Amino acid sequence: MEKIEKVGSYEFLAEPFHCDFNKRITMGHLGNHLLNAADFHAEARGFGMLYLSSISRSWVLSRLAVEMDETPCAYDRFTVETWVESAMRYFTSRNFAVVNAAGKPIGYGRSVWAMIDTETRQPVNILEVNDGALSGYVDAEKVCPIAKSSRVKMSETAAFVREIATGYSDIDVNGHVNSIKYIEHVLDLFPLSFYETHRLRRFEIAYVVETRCGEQLRFYREETEPDTFCVRICKLPVGADEEIEVCRCQLVFEKS
Amino acid sequence: MEKIEKVGSYEFLAEPFHCDFNKRITMGHLGNHLLNAADFHAEARGFGMLYLSSISRSWVLSRLAVEMDETPCAYDRFTVETWVESAMRYFTSRNFAVVNAAGKPIGYGRSVWAMIDTETRQPVNILEVNDGALSGYVDAEKVCPIAKSSRVKMSETAAFVREIATGYSDIDVNGHVNSIKYIEHVLDLFPLSFYETHRLRRFEIAYVVETRCGEQLRFYREETEPDTFCVRICKLPVGADEEIEVCRCQLVFEKS
Repeated sequence: MEKIEKVGSYEFLAEPFHCDFNKRITMGHLGNHLLNAADFHAEARGFGMLYLSSISRSWVLSRLAVEMDETPCAYDRFTVETWVESAMRYFTSRNFAVVNAAGKPIGYGRSVWAMIDTETRQPVNILEVNDGALSGYVDAEKVCPIAKSSRVKMSETAAFVREIATGYSDIDVNGHVNSIKYIEHVLDLFPLSFYETHRLRRFEIAYVVETRCGEQLRFYREETEPDTFCVRICKLPVGADEEIEVCRCQLVFEKS
Repeated sequence: MEKIEKVGSYEFLAEPFHCDFNKRITMGHLGNHLLNAADFHAEARGFGMLYLSSISRSWVLSRLAVEMDETPCAYDRFTVETWVESAMRYFTSRNFAVVNAAGKPIGYGRSVWAMIDTETRQPVNILEVNDGALSGYVDAEKVCPIAKSSRVKMSETAAFVREIATGYSDIDVNGHVNSIKYIEHVLDLFPLSFYETHRLRRFEIAYVVETRCGEQLRFYREETEPDTFCVRICKLPVGADEEIEVCRCQLVFEKS
């Protein structure tokens, strides 16, 4: 069998309907391309979601951070490179580089994943899957020059800014709110006028628990330093009267 | 120069994060692929959006109807064929066939487009663009066996069902609500439990006027016959006290 490279490269197009009014791909759609690249890479190496579903396992995205020096414009073709940076029993780190058509890296991503047994919903040992297929692809050398995700610190006084009901379009193949949809909802907390003068440089999200359709999402926001915002998303489970934290984000903007 | 075929074919993947809890691509994402295919086809033949923007022209989608016998599942590859069915001075009809990996047509689409001058916002003569480039590609023979869009009839008593604020993620490169986002918002009017027992067979939308960010959208729904729903979307322009109709949809479901 031909030796498969540790790094996978996948070409994407910044589709016009995936771009914002600045004619640049939105962070949600870009994030979706990273997740697709991750899955294509994993599938070709024996540990993708399709294979996992055949053995009652699933990847669970725990953290995602994306930092862009430049965001692809409508109709730009770009390549997403992805590789496994490290793997432990219960967590693996996967990195991304976004490379423009001229071959210049214009951004990077970092992600952390766990694996669960889809019947028991319990974590399982990643290193045991498919005879340890993943271990052979760890590339600790390739550089990903952006900060790792860190625990987003927020005070208890972050302002409540929005409550939304989750619906059909929010829900993914697993019956939970789609990881990408949280990103869209968070971006929508900022008015269009803000995006006229600010560019989103870095987006970071840590997923805590899953949300089911019909659960209300509540958004709390805090500007922790100039143009850096933290957002806590909580859910109110149907029939419950106490909120649970669902995920937490950090957005770093720069003046455009 | 090589003769370009009248019909263009473009392959797409039903990406996992574009699928609903039934593991089938949502009508919004499918519609996006049709619009991409339309643009790829047009661009290759001298009348795509990129070319048009260089001469201060733009396509405006007036109507879209999609009817699926079968909806692609997550990871399915499918082909969208598209061709121009007819062209008049101010409107052109473009059709679509969705073909599965085995080569079987599983659905069709119809669309109607106008062209505007992006400076005056006035309609322009489609047949004059790029020396009448479009006329040479009309294919009136290829069959599209689904009903044409027709004026969706609704009574004045359709029930008011939702009001939403439009935000950053709704807005497209032209600064208006994205044609696809209306589809998502309309699908969200139906509870998840409805989709557990019903499959969306046909979706039809007629766009009337554009919505800008911050304008409120109001949704009115009526079940005109069993499992057939009409939805009228109105907007309340900022500062106005009277609604304007923005678009009108018809959804035909079948028991699944």
